[in-house]
Amino acid sequence: MQIIQKLIDRTNNSLNINSLLDNIVISSRIRLARNIEEIPFTSNSNKDDRKKIFNLAKDIFDSKDIIKDSVFIDLGDYTQIERLFLVERHLVSQEHSKGGENYGVVINDTETISIMINEEDHFRLQALHSGLQLFSSWKLIDEIDEKLSKEVNYAFSPLFGYLTACPTNLGTGMRASVMLHLPALILTKQINKIIASVSKMDVIVRGLYGEGSKVLGDIFQISNQGAFGFKEEDIVKKIEEIAKYIVECEKTAREYLLKESRQVIEDKIWRAYGILKHCRTISSAESLSLISFLRLGVDLKIMPKSDIDFNFLNRMMLLIQPGHLQNIEKRRLDIKNRDILRADLIRKMLN
Amino acid sequence: MQIIQKLIDRTNNSLNINSLLDNIVISSRIRLARNIEEIPFTSNSNKDDRKKIFNLAKDIFDSKDIIKDSVFIDLGDYTQIERLFLVERHLVSQEHSKGGENYGVVINDTETISIMINEEDHFRLQALHSGLQLFSSWKLIDEIDEKLSKEVNYAFSPLFGYLTACPTNLGTGMRASVMLHLPALILTKQINKIIASVSKMDVIVRGLYGEGSKVLGDIFQISNQGAFGFKEEDIVKKIEEIAKYIVECEKTAREYLLKESRQVIEDKIWRAYGILKHCRTISSAESLSLISFLRLGVDLKIMPKSDIDFNFLNRMMLLIQPGHLQNIEKRRLDIKNRDILRADLIRKMLN
Repeated sequence: MQIIQKLIDRTNNSLNINSLLDNIVISSRIRLARNIEEIPFTSNSNKDDRKKIFNLAKDIFDSKDIIKDSVFIDLGDYTQIERLFLVERHLVSQEHSKGGENYGVVINDTETISIMINEEDHFRLQALHSGLQLFSSWKLIDEIDEKLSKEVNYAFSPLFGYLTACPTNLGTGMRASVMLHLPALILTKQINKIIASVSKMDVIVRGLYGEGSKVLGDIFQISNQGAFGFKEEDIVKKIEEIAKYIVECEKTAREYLLKESRQVIEDKIWRAYGILKHCRTISSAESLSLISFLRLGVDLKIMPKSDIDFNFLNRMMLLIQPGHLQNIEKRRLDIKNRDILRADLIRKMLN
Repeated sequence: MQIIQKLIDRTNNSLNINSLLDNIVISSRIRLARNIEEIPFTSNSNKDDRKKIFNLAKDIFDSKDIIKDSVFIDLGDYTQIERLFLVERHLVSQEHSKGGENYGVVINDTETISIMINEEDHFRLQALHSGLQLFSSWKLIDEIDEKLSKEVNYAFSPLFGYLTACPTNLGTGMRASVMLHLPALILTKQINKIIASVSKMDVIVRGLYGEGSKVLGDIFQISNQGAFGFKEEDIVKKIEEIAKYIVECEKTAREYLLKESRQVIEDKIWRAYGILKHCRTISSAESLSLISFLRLGVDLKIMPKSDIDFNFLNRMMLLIQPGHLQNIEKRRLDIKNRDILRADLIRKMLN
């Protein structure tokens, strides 16, 4: 599909994901759950209901100028490998990527917006920015939400707010989340304490691909637990505050590591570089874990190669993933061959 | 001590240890145990006995032309670090290096000969060559033995042959040993089978520093179990035959690895290179294990850097050892600093 190639080109050219704080906070995301009045939630809907939602969405996004430079995608037209690619770019959820008929997604050129159609809710509106920019993401998605609300009748109750398939989303339907890179908190074994303490504040901590996913590359996602009984602004503010608190903890841990065990940390970073630069086969989990050390190295100014910066490493993190590798190669690859091609790609990038 | 600096220079310049088969057989060694008549064995001797042996040896080796370009060393004049250096070069045994008064060793300029005085036996004569050259070693040490026997009265019985402190050395007093590098037999998990089968042939398999030492860098020492009831020539022949057999097994295993899992083996070799080239701290055990992969890489022509050859890697294996590092630095270093300096040295060598 053309859009996949466009996104690959975008990554190769200059995916500009440098911004304030994007060294520890990789990205910020706001997601809104919305449903259409008088049509059953996706979980209870039949094929006709889903078709109705799908066609409604297609009509609106194709004809109205709701999202600039966007494309409406029928996932049914996409192969498993192409869908995996979209998951790896956080444009489609893992669940949604497995869907059959009438599963859609709208994405814009800069990949800041994604609207999933017939996911757990009829509409899942998402805005994604690099670094800590929750308020920008909220502003962006709020505008889209506003426009969309003029085209459809949202299921809304004055008492409960937005009605959603899962009660945890009831009310604002909002989930605010940030992706954090926390290698020093892991190395200093403080991460579990931090997770426990933020969990008490109704915050969920998860892995790289959200719900039920493993922590890879020392990357954690934190987001609000409930959406009901809060104002949208308060949710955004709270997650932003907690993110800032964790960033401070991570910074302190990095300073501690540099002061107390500089040699050990330098060794880990350089070994990661040596392995990535020379290996002949490597899994994505190991790559992410080694790239994590390079990210730390860039931050601590331990990697002297000036062409290795966060932008470069963010690109590498995307490209080494199975869906990306297979879409770049334009063919299905088994694990063994993926691991070999991944090593080739990393070697080329580092040489 | 001057001799230490001389040996370090020798290593830095060109320690020529390339020869036939020295890729799998690293070195060949013949050792003869000899004692002087009517003086108790070292274990039962008193200080005066040991002084007598020591002075006798010093007189002979200082005045007679028994070993060309050799030096008589009183270990009492050497620091622990300098003694460790001599152990690492296989010129002195670990046991002998710990001795107090009247512990001597004669070594020649090319390090092919070492005569330990007051080790387990009064004299321990050793000839060491690179590669599989047991007959050359035997010829060399036999000449020295012949000359020495004209200067002293060896403890000898027509019935038992040479009398030695340990009954396992009785008879010829000979131990023939070869040092073998067997990474492919380890990777293919055949090594234990091989060790079991040669053990049945009265052959002992040990680690890098002989008796009781660990296997480091995939290097094994094999030697004859008993010295009694065999002709010297038969012992040498037997160890040579067994070495050749193991070399064949190792070669077959290497071919198998290349054929069946080239990618895996290339990956291991390149990762070893990447880590050695970039690490900031490393133990000698890890270094030896990674250098083992580089040796394998040179043999399998997987390391394209032409300046990395067996000679280079043999030098590296010597230089990274604790005694060498400390003598090069000319100061005592704790483990932490040794590991850092070792990484520095390896990095310099590989860049």
